[in-house]
Amino acid sequence: MNIRYPNGKVFQSTANTSSKNKAPVLYGNRGMTLEDDLHETNLYYLHHQIAVVHKKPTPIQIVDVHYPKRSAAVIKEAYFKQASTTDFNGVYKGKYIDFEAKETKNKTSFPLQNFHEHQIQHMQQVVKQNGICFVILLFRVFNEVYLLPAERLFYYWERKEAGERKSITKQEVEKDGYLIPIGFQPRIDYIKIIDSVYC
Amino acid sequence: MNIRYPNGKVFQSTANTSSKNKAPVLYGNRGMTLEDDLHETNLYYLHHQIAVVHKKPTPIQIVDVHYPKRSAAVIKEAYFKQASTTDFNGVYKGKYIDFEAKETKNKTSFPLQNFHEHQIQHMQQVVKQNGICFVILLFRVFNEVYLLPAERLFYYWERKEAGERKSITKQEVEKDGYLIPIGFQPRIDYIKIIDSVYC
Repeated sequence: MNIRYPNGKVFQSTANTSSKNKAPVLYGNRGMTLEDDLHETNLYYLHHQIAVVHKKPTPIQIVDVHYPKRSAAVIKEAYFKQASTTDFNGVYKGKYIDFEAKETKNKTSFPLQNFHEHQIQHMQQVVKQNGICFVILLFRVFNEVYLLPAERLFYYWERKEAGERKSITKQEVEKDGYLIPIGFQPRIDYIKIIDSVYC
Repeated sequence: MNIRYPNGKVFQSTANTSSKNKAPVLYGNRGMTLEDDLHETNLYYLHHQIAVVHKKPTPIQIVDVHYPKRSAAVIKEAYFKQASTTDFNGVYKGKYIDFEAKETKNKTSFPLQNFHEHQIQHMQQVVKQNGICFVILLFRVFNEVYLLPAERLFYYWERKEAGERKSITKQEVEKDGYLIPIGFQPRIDYIKIIDSVYC
């Protein structure tokens, strides 16, 4: 029988791990998503006063709201809107950081269709303002997470716009990006990479 | 007869303004809100590559979504959530900026009930990370907009927590804050204040 957390997620016991060096949790083996892990990572940063980074709420177009007496307003009709920025932003040592996180099941390349034109535009605006801007890419099959600076993403985006390949090869991600080791706390320690690359 | 914009707002003609120095647009006289003006200001900053600042979407708790065939997903039941951060953040010359904007019709003081405990906490976290953090306060009756650094807000918040007055007097806002002149483009040029106060 599966034991479940209150949110419905299956509890994965790690009590029988015999090795002293615990094996990293694998994306293939569990219900966790990249977004969950980044949420946990950002909470860790917040509680340890390392950085203040939040995921932006999903933008919603509200069409109809009811106001029942003696209870909270209920949204009765609404639609998902396309986000005009990236999902995550915040502050680290006074500096602005901004990123988007995406994953692929692809083994050989990261498809650029994961990004939207206006997100690229937003990242270009951030880079012009000297913000620290990047994407976090998960290759789910290999359990590998990379930080790729926005400037390199722009290069591959322009290559796509020029009619060439519509993805970044895994070799290119390995060459231009930085592997973020998956850990326990924090799970995806991207600030460590920022420290070595940008600071 | 009132002439209206497509969005329903009444058009206020300024053609018969005789004075060379046009009178500033008054909050009392028009449908514009502080939020509209900050939106226009942020668009101006964005287009002129002065800063990249966006308002965060309102957080919504989605309960029920329908997926009709051949059309967009419809949210059928959702509720407004309390925001856990401030409304605006972004980047200016590499630096993180973060603020909340509030208004009052009160003539003598700014009520602190406009802010929530978790917003104050968020601002404290930002200040600890050396982010530029402040509030923009509109006294609607006087048509006056002030930038008040978060550190000063904390002082008055703690005074309230200590059981003393539940507002900041207008004199205190004048003393600790910076009057932002209301202009045409940009409407509320808070970056100019940041330049002189923080940079």
